[in-house]
Amino acid sequence: MPQLLTDDFLLTTAYAKELYHDYARDMPIIDFHNHLPPQEVADDSSFETITDVWLSGDHYKWRLMRANGIKEHFITGNASKKEKFDAWAETVPNTLGNPLFQWTQMELKNYFGIHDFLSPETADDIWERTNAALKEKSMSVRSLLAKDRVEFLGTTDDPTDDLSAHQWIAKEQLDVKVAPSFRPDQALNIAGAGFISWTEKLGEVVDENLNTYKDFLTALSNRIEYFDQHGCRASDHGLNRMFYEESTEAEVERIYQKRLNGGVLTDLEVEKYQTRTLLHLAADYSERGWVMQLHIGPLRNNNTKMLEAIGRDSGYDSIGDAPLADALSRFLDSLEYEDTLPKTVLFGLNPRDNYILATMAGNFQDGSIPGKVQFGTAWWFNDHIDGMEDQMKILANVGLIRHFIGMLTDSRSFLSFSRHEYFRRILCNLLGRWMEEGRVPADSKWLGSYVQDISYYNAKRYFNL
Amino acid sequence: MPQLLTDDFLLTTAYAKELYHDYARDMPIIDFHNHLPPQEVADDSSFETITDVWLSGDHYKWRLMRANGIKEHFITGNASKKEKFDAWAETVPNTLGNPLFQWTQMELKNYFGIHDFLSPETADDIWERTNAALKEKSMSVRSLLAKDRVEFLGTTDDPTDDLSAHQWIAKEQLDVKVAPSFRPDQALNIAGAGFISWTEKLGEVVDENLNTYKDFLTALSNRIEYFDQHGCRASDHGLNRMFYEESTEAEVERIYQKRLNGGVLTDLEVEKYQTRTLLHLAADYSERGWVMQLHIGPLRNNNTKMLEAIGRDSGYDSIGDAPLADALSRFLDSLEYEDTLPKTVLFGLNPRDNYILATMAGNFQDGSIPGKVQFGTAWWFNDHIDGMEDQMKILANVGLIRHFIGMLTDSRSFLSFSRHEYFRRILCNLLGRWMEEGRVPADSKWLGSYVQDISYYNAKRYFNL
Amino acid sequence: MPQLLTDDFLLTTAYAKELYHDYARDMPIIDFHNHLPPQEVADDSSFETITDVWLSGDHYKWRLMRANGIKEHFITGNASKKEKFDAWAETVPNTLGNPLFQWTQMELKNYFGIHDFLSPETADDIWERTNAALKEKSMSVRSLLAKDRVEFLGTTDDPTDDLSAHQWIAKEQLDVKVAPSFRPDQALNIAGAGFISWTEKLGEVVDENLNTYKDFLTALSNRIEYFDQHGCRASDHGLNRMFYEESTEAEVERIYQKRLNGGVLTDLEVEKYQTRTLLHLAADYSERGWVMQLHIGPLRNNNTKMLEAIGRDSGYDSIGDAPLADALSRFLDSLEYEDTLPKTVLFGLNPRDNYILATMAGNFQDGSIPGKVQFGTAWWFNDHIDGMEDQMKILANVGLIRHFIGMLTDSRSFLSFSRHEYFRRILCNLLGRWMEEGRVPADSKWLGSYVQDISYYNAKRYFNL
Repeated sequence: MPQLLTDDFLLTTAYAKELYHDYARDMPIIDFHNHLPPQEVADDSSFETITDVWLSGDHYKWRLMRANGIKEHFITGNASKKEKFDAWAETVPNTLGNPLFQWTQMELKNYFGIHDFLSPETADDIWERTNAALKEKSMSVRSLLAKDRVEFLGTTDDPTDDLSAHQWIAKEQLDVKVAPSFRPDQALNIAGAGFISWTEKLGEVVDENLNTYKDFLTALSNRIEYFDQHGCRASDHGLNRMFYEESTEAEVERIYQKRLNGGVLTDLEVEKYQTRTLLHLAADYSERGWVMQLHIGPLRNNNTKMLEAIGRDSGYDSIGDAPLADALSRFLDSLEYEDTLPKTVLFGLNPRDNYILATMAGNFQDGSIPGKVQFGTAWWFNDHIDGMEDQMKILANVGLIRHFIGMLTDSRSFLSFSRHEYFRRILCNLLGRWMEEGRVPADSKWLGSYVQDISYYNAKRYFNL
Repeated sequence: MPQLLTDDFLLTTAYAKELYHDYARDMPIIDFHNHLPPQEVADDSSFETITDVWLSGDHYKWRLMRANGIKEHFITGNASKKEKFDAWAETVPNTLGNPLFQWTQMELKNYFGIHDFLSPETADDIWERTNAALKEKSMSVRSLLAKDRVEFLGTTDDPTDDLSAHQWIAKEQLDVKVAPSFRPDQALNIAGAGFISWTEKLGEVVDENLNTYKDFLTALSNRIEYFDQHGCRASDHGLNRMFYEESTEAEVERIYQKRLNGGVLTDLEVEKYQTRTLLHLAADYSERGWVMQLHIGPLRNNNTKMLEAIGRDSGYDSIGDAPLADALSRFLDSLEYEDTLPKTVLFGLNPRDNYILATMAGNFQDGSIPGKVQFGTAWWFNDHIDGMEDQMKILANVGLIRHFIGMLTDSRSFLSFSRHEYFRRILCNLLGRWMEEGRVPADSKWLGSYVQDISYYNAKRYFNL
Repeated sequence: MPQLLTDDFLLTTAYAKELYHDYARDMPIIDFHNHLPPQEVADDSSFETITDVWLSGDHYKWRLMRANGIKEHFITGNASKKEKFDAWAETVPNTLGNPLFQWTQMELKNYFGIHDFLSPETADDIWERTNAALKEKSMSVRSLLAKDRVEFLGTTDDPTDDLSAHQWIAKEQLDVKVAPSFRPDQALNIAGAGFISWTEKLGEVVDENLNTYKDFLTALSNRIEYFDQHGCRASDHGLNRMFYEESTEAEVERIYQKRLNGGVLTDLEVEKYQTRTLLHLAADYSERGWVMQLHIGPLRNNNTKMLEAIGRDSGYDSIGDAPLADALSRFLDSLEYEDTLPKTVLFGLNPRDNYILATMAGNFQDGSIPGKVQFGTAWWFNDHIDGMEDQMKILANVGLIRHFIGMLTDSRSFLSFSRHEYFRRILCNLLGRWMEEGRVPADSKWLGSYVQDISYYNAKRYFNL
């Protein structure tokens, strides 16, 4: 049987191999944005079966299973865990060319020492072996983090969260640092059905009646202070499309009142509200030295039938094509003009916007630190060899890849840290190819310093760790 | 003189050679979408000169001739057939890098055994040799189809067509199966000058007065039934831009009446009409198990002077940049919600939309069959090595290339089947490179099964052949 | 220390080396669009320090310095020339992957014979050696042009310019031909604060009161005639986004009056004015056989704080995403219909528009000359290996790269001609790779003729030199 995951997986030149093995491989991991549950770190949880780890929440896999003709019963339905695993095993041999094939095999190898390719033929055996292994203490959440040399986790948390798991972890002084990230999507989503109930919850948390927009903003600021006290270094925003609409404070106060009173807002009102609110939040982030992460561009919940059946984040999102440049420019400009632009990371979901984001970042470098505004790594649908290479090449072409803060998993699974290995192999292969082709000096030490910065040190500096 | 078309043309690794020669080369051809005239199959036509085959209707070549500084007289004008051939021969040496250079040489080699490069120096000789060959019985339409192992042709037919050629072919039980495709662009184009006369023609065909929109839809449904009875398995739609505007049936009835009475429709009215009509058609396709092909994105008839002089489809179309994602999402969602989404193939003309289409397809996989919604192969201006590789890489990155239904010629020429060879070489070269670079297991049998599925079996299954 | 700039820099195949050394290297240079000051050619100026050449106006470098965390004081502020040079030397080791690294080293090698990598360690030495060299007569502007075999410079000039430097140069019959290019951006920018004063200046130059739009157009035509008399062969337009709005002459007369009287124009009025004015100019260019260059797509002055502090063109521009295809089509169509379409070069700043522009060019080839409408070379943020390769591949895929007029520097520096070498190496490497991979015949003479045409002869013919 042919090998896939040799030591030199994805490393196609001698330079790439040297860069990876001598500079990248042993660097610790800073996973500054993910969706891991901090409670599971606190509890040092274990997993009962491989299905719990792999298939209980990973809508990347669900999409591929559906594309493979698997019935929903075996994906999110009532099929047994073994049946669901078998459905995935049936799908895997048809995933060549997709990163999930490589990730599946990397996770089998790195965490279970399994080199077999997952398929219907090997499914029973792999089911047994992985489930047996998962019972071992060495496979608990904190053991996995230690094994992967994870130094820092940036989770994703609602402003109303009490951060109790984070507090417990901080008190225990675990080897891994786990900081919350402030994700106030609910605060921005004024048109959403859940806005009023979320606002009420926020009011309870800060123990105030949020009868005015002013109160609302104050409550958000209070939560930012609270998050800051609990080690938060970053916010994160999921924006389906970028917006920028100017308004007066009085106008937005009226919009807020209209919404609380059950009124239906126009698109313009929504964007005025969102603009003013995000500007307010950004100024707060700036004051505290936080990083603002903007994830821009998904088209969500495209399949209403399945949304009604199984809810959001179930694998029915795709890539949008809304215009971006003007609004993003005006938004960042407004902050920069007021000296309230925080460190900012721009993530775009549509790779056709890569050059827009990479050059936009260059407009707001103020010389305060290297790479203050970052063009973020390939994200979600772009999290594969071509997508990562493309993002890095574009960043290098129009900016300084030297200061790139690199990879994050954005994942819900504790087995996803293999993706840092994946990223580093791709990075080293790209730089190695540049050396091989004579685009850059064939100086491994020089290039190796890039590799180490991008793999680890840049993020460490950028997030003040 | 250097060779171009060796056995290993475009195959740059040993793996690629193995995949092509052992798995791809001998597969039959399913050309599920083209513009070949079925009557020529029925008649088993021959061609008088190479100019008739190559230059009488191929606006790809016309564009390059114009870019080469050739006067229109020698392209679509009154020049002799030999003069037109000479004008093309003068152009060919300047086409390096363009697929037409490779196609020209492939057609000379595959059909005429000619290895010389076409140029003014070789023009007279090649003119003589090709024209002599074309007189042979072995160069008739059906002989060519047999030589190329073409099992299935999906032609492109107006709903008003009586399909008499198809009927004759079916009755004769030829080796090649020729099915019509239902292409109701005229039915959608309510703002076009020819709408009323086309509607009258449709009325005559179904022997009804189409005085109401309801009648009009019924007539279309009748024609779908008629096409279905005559072996049709697919529809095809050319959409300059995607649309989705909701309406009531009464509203569209009024729009239809307004148009029949000579009124000028607003853009919004047109899109309401188009949306409702296309939803109706799609539901019919779904019921009959047809495939719906959407070809989205050309900017047509850019050169009004030449439109007036020589008409449509003459080489004056290019690539548009209208937004796509929202409307396409809502259109497909509406069908999916009503359980009326047929098997669907999404073709985009602007390659910057590739990721949008590839991820959009993933939103509507319902598990009924593998790859129910397809991201279609590189089309028209993208029908070259880079375009095809790009489409396949993107499909693999975010979906399952395993279930890709592959190539079609979209051509008006019986010599274009070389493009299936071209596609297969590019496919094998891509997969071979993945093997060489260690992205996938170097397992030729496994990868070979992908090659055979994509070259042949997937389309066979998808179109129920 | 590893070598970078060997003789075979960027040439990765034997074919590429042959093409470059035997066909490209010794071709003269036609730099048909740049921002060099003609007065410096007339004066045969010298430069005091390397900072004057490199850092006094090059906002490409400024952007990278800011991204490297350099304070503005050392970029455009009051720091000494040596401090600014040191700041750049500190930045350079962090620019691997960016073209400025390669350009910096190429300029050190080609003009100063320096092979050391610029860095803080080498900064003092390189500062001394370059400044000493700059004092030599062999480093005067005209000596540099002669050394680089520059035959033609197309500068960029305001319509109100008296072209005195060009006149002096023409009279002296220098080895280098220096022609003005007509750049009437001020005439188009009716909404700009400077429009009225610029119009007054134009009035003074033509000695007329430009009280009517008709007078204004006549004045522009007079200046076109004047430029034509002084050797101008081309115009150039910087367009942030493409526009096309029809109007009557009377309407635009009113818009013009409104603006002169201090009125604030609507966006629609501005676009009507711009459309009519640009159509008028284009017709004039056509009549005189000029080339019209359209540079479309920047998003300018994104950082208002820095705009107020240090003005325009200071490194705060990026790439926009305005729609392009419809308006550009209608604009070119309108000219073509009236038989007033000049030779035209389409440059796009957003590489996602490359296929749109490359196919748009093909709509308006009228057979009068090869490549009448050109898809221009990679520009500004795309002026690197990936950007240039991408532009050339796309041009080849959908058009005829044979007739491509190739490279221009667009630069303000007399040391930038190394970029022609850079371009030629990239071109030869691309064609060499096609030969190596068997996409084109491995016929060096045939391919070499492409290289020579693209490097030199095509531009010479296109601009009637």
